[in-house]
Amino acid sequence: MENKQDLPLILVTNDDGVDALGIKVLASVAKHFGKVVVVAPARAQSGKSHAITFSTPLRYRMLKDTPEMEVYKVYGTPVDAFKIADREILKDRRPDLLLSGINHGSNTSASLIYSGTMATVIEGCLNGIPAIGFSLTDNGQTPDFEACRMYVYSIIYQALKHRMPADVCLNVNIPAVPKDQIAGVRVTRQALNHWHESLEKRLDPQGHAYFWLTGHLGDEDKGEDTDEWAVKHNFISVQPVQVDMTAYHYMDTLKTWNF
Amino acid sequence: MENKQDLPLILVTNDDGVDALGIKVLASVAKHFGKVVVVAPARAQSGKSHAITFSTPLRYRMLKDTPEMEVYKVYGTPVDAFKIADREILKDRRPDLLLSGINHGSNTSASLIYSGTMATVIEGCLNGIPAIGFSLTDNGQTPDFEACRMYVYSIIYQALKHRMPADVCLNVNIPAVPKDQIAGVRVTRQALNHWHESLEKRLDPQGHAYFWLTGHLGDEDKGEDTDEWAVKHNFISVQPVQVDMTAYHYMDTLKTWNF
Repeated sequence: MENKQDLPLILVTNDDGVDALGIKVLASVAKHFGKVVVVAPARAQSGKSHAITFSTPLRYRMLKDTPEMEVYKVYGTPVDAFKIADREILKDRRPDLLLSGINHGSNTSASLIYSGTMATVIEGCLNGIPAIGFSLTDNGQTPDFEACRMYVYSIIYQALKHRMPADVCLNVNIPAVPKDQIAGVRVTRQALNHWHESLEKRLDPQGHAYFWLTGHLGDEDKGEDTDEWAVKHNFISVQPVQVDMTAYHYMDTLKTWNF
Repeated sequence: MENKQDLPLILVTNDDGVDALGIKVLASVAKHFGKVVVVAPARAQSGKSHAITFSTPLRYRMLKDTPEMEVYKVYGTPVDAFKIADREILKDRRPDLLLSGINHGSNTSASLIYSGTMATVIEGCLNGIPAIGFSLTDNGQTPDFEACRMYVYSIIYQALKHRMPADVCLNVNIPAVPKDQIAGVRVTRQALNHWHESLEKRLDPQGHAYFWLTGHLGDEDKGEDTDEWAVKHNFISVQPVQVDMTAYHYMDTLKTWNF
């Protein structure tokens, strides 16, 4: 049962998997604000977006249970992990905040839509939980998450202090630079850049073709108010994300079509 | 090489798999408008949202190649199928229209975000291709797609005639009722209803717990201008969908936070 003395309950998840360095850093910062429950995929799930699993069953396992932190791994997608957390592990408790990340790699611009990190954030938002996704623009083997600790702390503090509206969550992208080179925090919009994919064709030993999906994010959007501009100029980007996908600006025109 | 005599090139995909009845109906309607190229997942991929595959390679296979229709299956997610189509199968051609579906089951309200059908539509839109997703509100074994043929034709006709802006695509949901009971077409917004998931716990023969993800869509949003209201009242719902996820209405407030 909750009472006034209860600390905030903070659900921490990600898409890189429960063993990733980024989620350990995020959980350790979150501990300063309350009880932390980590529920994350057992294995790396980058690029899984909002995928959910309903044609096969789900399983999870507890890894740690101490007064200050619980840790669970879910054999499924990032959004599966959220649902196991929300409907099973925390079914009698209500998270005050959902944090996802710190992602190993950028989730700016068009990457947002493929991101499992941001899918869990949107999922939290759809379920009435204030939610923030954190990503570091370094997807190498040994990203340095230490430089951004103070900013992650500050953004969590502000999110707990202010109340975001029910239909808004945050996408935070952090430039992978030393602490003294971080230029500050910018509120941004999503850059309207395109992914330029290519399929790298190879032949297997039987001579059959297979394709590796690869690509790079373009820089079509030249705006200086975007998430991409911010991280490229060493600012931490804080983008408010909406969950209603209706294109209201096109409704009146669409009503003139003669169906 | 294209010339003025060329018919429109129409890319048809789905998330129920290349063998689904819905995509066959959609392709047969699309044939009236031009050359149809079907590129769809080899297996059912419902609920895969925008998931993409880059940690394992992709493969595809041609099933049919006639002057009026080509058919390919992709061993991957719906968005993988789009990327194989756009970057490999059609790399020297440019689709004039992307059609996805007809989905076996509704993609109204919160279902939009999990839908592989609508993920391919958004993907087409992000790549500059006018795109429409069609869904029938019947996910049973033997849905009747015949009643809606005329409306699907009409909506495709209007989409080719009008030019949608580059950042808008369409989510069309069709009530599963006999033709003479379809009340008409409504332009709608996405209902802000919640999925009420539950996890059905079972024990395997070894006594370990596993969970089936199940649930139902709530009816919190009582508006009469929504997709949900439309299909429940036998109207075909045409919802314009945006691809920019920035919550512009919250940017000024967010700028007052003291990071």
